[in-house]
Amino acid sequence: MTPLPLETHKVRTTSRNEMVEVTDHLRQVVARRNILEGLLIVYVPHTTAAATINENADPDVKHDMLAKLSELAPQRERYYRHAEGNSDSHVKSAMVGQSVTVLVEGGQLVLGRWQGVYFCEFDGPRDRELFVKVVMFRSKGAD
Amino acid sequence: MTPLPLETHKVRTTSRNEMVEVTDHLRQVVARRNILEGLLIVYVPHTTAAATINENADPDVKHDMLAKLSELAPQRERYYRHAEGNSDSHVKSAMVGQSVTVLVEGGQLVLGRWQGVYFCEFDGPRDRELFVKVVMFRSKGAD
Amino acid sequence: MTPLPLETHKVRTTSRNEMVEVTDHLRQVVARRNILEGLLIVYVPHTTAAATINENADPDVKHDMLAKLSELAPQRERYYRHAEGNSDSHVKSAMVGQSVTVLVEGGQLVLGRWQGVYFCEFDGPRDRELFVKVVMFRSKGAD
Repeated sequence: MTPLPLETHKVRTTSRNEMVEVTDHLRQVVARRNILEGLLIVYVPHTTAAATINENADPDVKHDMLAKLSELAPQRERYYRHAEGNSDSHVKSAMVGQSVTVLVEGGQLVLGRWQGVYFCEFDGPRDRELFVKVVMFRSKGAD
Repeated sequence: MTPLPLETHKVRTTSRNEMVEVTDHLRQVVARRNILEGLLIVYVPHTTAAATINENADPDVKHDMLAKLSELAPQRERYYRHAEGNSDSHVKSAMVGQSVTVLVEGGQLVLGRWQGVYFCEFDGPRDRELFVKVVMFRSKGAD
Repeated sequence: MTPLPLETHKVRTTSRNEMVEVTDHLRQVVARRNILEGLLIVYVPHTTAAATINENADPDVKHDMLAKLSELAPQRERYYRHAEGNSDSHVKSAMVGQSVTVLVEGGQLVLGRWQGVYFCEFDGPRDRELFVKVVMFRSKGAD
């Protein structure tokens, strides 16, 4: 079992609400690090963003998810006190979550057929970071 | 520290929205694998289902949770674009989450008195899968 | 890689809905255990409480998050069946989540500039517990 150094990935978002797929980034980590078996802890170090795993086939799914979340948590509410005007972003972050754990088996990410991993922006556009910690159980070099 | 082979559990759901308790499945994994100390990563490889930990005493809690989630994300919204008619299921999946980590101590799942682990179906009925990855810290065979 | 004994932290809440910051508790665990690199699994063994990571600068953020969650899931709904009157608390618990994983690098919690770790009470006031499992990759004593 080998923990690898924490990696930081840059994510540039272009809208206030946006789901940016990062599955290929993670696949590149798995390939570059020769991971045969292990797990990836994908962590968002921001309080108005999140990480999730959802459909990567029809882009309308992202639209509908973001639209529903924004209907549930619109930017303005009469009872919001936080002066920055992004209380909705904080709530969405808490509802979706700051982190996902992705397994690696046989040198591949363990994902369902339609699943992709997403960085969720809820207060963009911004330059963001995504941390990836790999805990390697077996490398491809091992027999 | 020993990672065990990924296990796949079948879950057959019978309603569009349903919480299926899988705690006993996990207990059987712990017993069969002789796990004294470790952790279980329980992962849902679907984009319209989820995993959570909640009350397993009064079945009305499941009813109320599913009813509230369906009120927040009804199946139809005028602004939904995704043609499959299950955008609500994707949103619920993101709100509840795709994965839970369950600790094992002293050969037992670490759960609160009223807690059970649930597979959450949001677009059933379907035949589903639940992945379980065990990372074993100590086995019962060890001294 | 060394798993440390499960720790239980007491959390006393004073309101029905409340976010109690526990970041300092976790920092003390890291210091006391001499953790240089590792991860902390922070687990809430209750079905009407949760754990999350969010802003720890402006306390108005906590107010706004709790207000929004209570608007989405008010205590009473005509369709609730659970007799204890806390179905809203169970839903909030599922939406926010029972557990967070916090990385440790260079002897420090890996958190964004504005992030703190919170125990979320949704059915207080109560005496609660928070479990912390440390998986240590490297200790400060190691070279």
